[in-house]
Amino acid sequence: MTSKHVDGGFITFEGIDGSGKSTQARLLADHLRSQGYDVVLTREPGGSVGAEEIRALVLEGDPDRWSAETEILLFTAARRDHLERTILPALAAGKIVICDRFADSTRMYQGLSRGDLRGIVDQLHELMIGREPDLTVLIDMDPAEGLSRAKSRQTAEERFEDFGQALQDQMRAGFLALSREYADRFCVISGTGTLEEVAARVTSTVQDHLS
Amino acid sequence: MTSKHVDGGFITFEGIDGSGKSTQARLLADHLRSQGYDVVLTREPGGSVGAEEIRALVLEGDPDRWSAETEILLFTAARRDHLERTILPALAAGKIVICDRFADSTRMYQGLSRGDLRGIVDQLHELMIGREPDLTVLIDMDPAEGLSRAKSRQTAEERFEDFGQALQDQMRAGFLALSREYADRFCVISGTGTLEEVAARVTSTVQDHLS
Repeated sequence: MTSKHVDGGFITFEGIDGSGKSTQARLLADHLRSQGYDVVLTREPGGSVGAEEIRALVLEGDPDRWSAETEILLFTAARRDHLERTILPALAAGKIVICDRFADSTRMYQGLSRGDLRGIVDQLHELMIGREPDLTVLIDMDPAEGLSRAKSRQTAEERFEDFGQALQDQMRAGFLALSREYADRFCVISGTGTLEEVAARVTSTVQDHLS
Repeated sequence: MTSKHVDGGFITFEGIDGSGKSTQARLLADHLRSQGYDVVLTREPGGSVGAEEIRALVLEGDPDRWSAETEILLFTAARRDHLERTILPALAAGKIVICDRFADSTRMYQGLSRGDLRGIVDQLHELMIGREPDLTVLIDMDPAEGLSRAKSRQTAEERFEDFGQALQDQMRAGFLALSREYADRFCVISGTGTLEEVAARVTSTVQDHLS
């Protein structure tokens, strides 16, 4: 079967921890593959050999081992590698790229939660990345519900999820503000309901975008 | 013995591979310590725990594993960590910091040898580093002589020294051009002669700067 060639197939998922975005990204990839699309499912930080090495350097060990500024530089290095080695070649080949977190997560997490560094984040993005997704699916979720989900699956990388209710509230508001700032590419989808209910909303939105 | 407190004690060594700058940096550190100064001798890339980990990530493995742009981001991340954790605290304590390579090396090696990326290097420096040395000692050396010295001590990190005569010529010219661009802090010292002869020139220059 020949795969369908897609233009504008760079789709990212964003949302607070526990919003279900990683699961929804995977379900969307499965669905689109069943429709005959060639799909690359990837994630950040990481998504290429080099970027995964940088991810390990950033996320493992003492939470204070890197300053916020150094962390932003490392995430930007990882994103540049991911873009060059994974995302852009797949898009050039007409594939769909579904990415679990991208620059919007840096705008939120490094731009908000580790000090007011949004200006630096934006300048670095413009200088070294440039590319924005064609469609960003924001899974919007009640912060209390997201937090309880996130806590039920803590990992070695849990430090990014260890900020509590106040930060979750701030992050949700921040993501919603971003969705207004980049209204041309953001779609806000309610994360309330069963996996299947949310997946149906995502699928419908993405089909609209692709057609 | 109480150490002498110094202002303006951030001294960097630059030069082409095989110029003898690392040896001269060490000899200067020894000399200044014998004079009662508290000296931190450090190097780039590296010079702090985190920066040394980034150094390993950049310098080991396939030379093409990182693009020039990703490499610049990684070097900038390492420099930021080195500055925050090693250089600035030592300077704030009134110590002398002698650093084997700093941002000028990035201006040359990433700005010249891997494509014309000087503009990106400068913008990243301004955004994330900002700080320049108080004194930069450029050990100027005939490129053929430098190359033969460098080749006699190849290491696992040799890829940065594997560019041949043409690049050495270009680098020497580039460092001399930098010394004119930043004339207020550069001192060009001839690397010709015995170790002791060169060291005497360096010591004299640095004593002038400190007094």
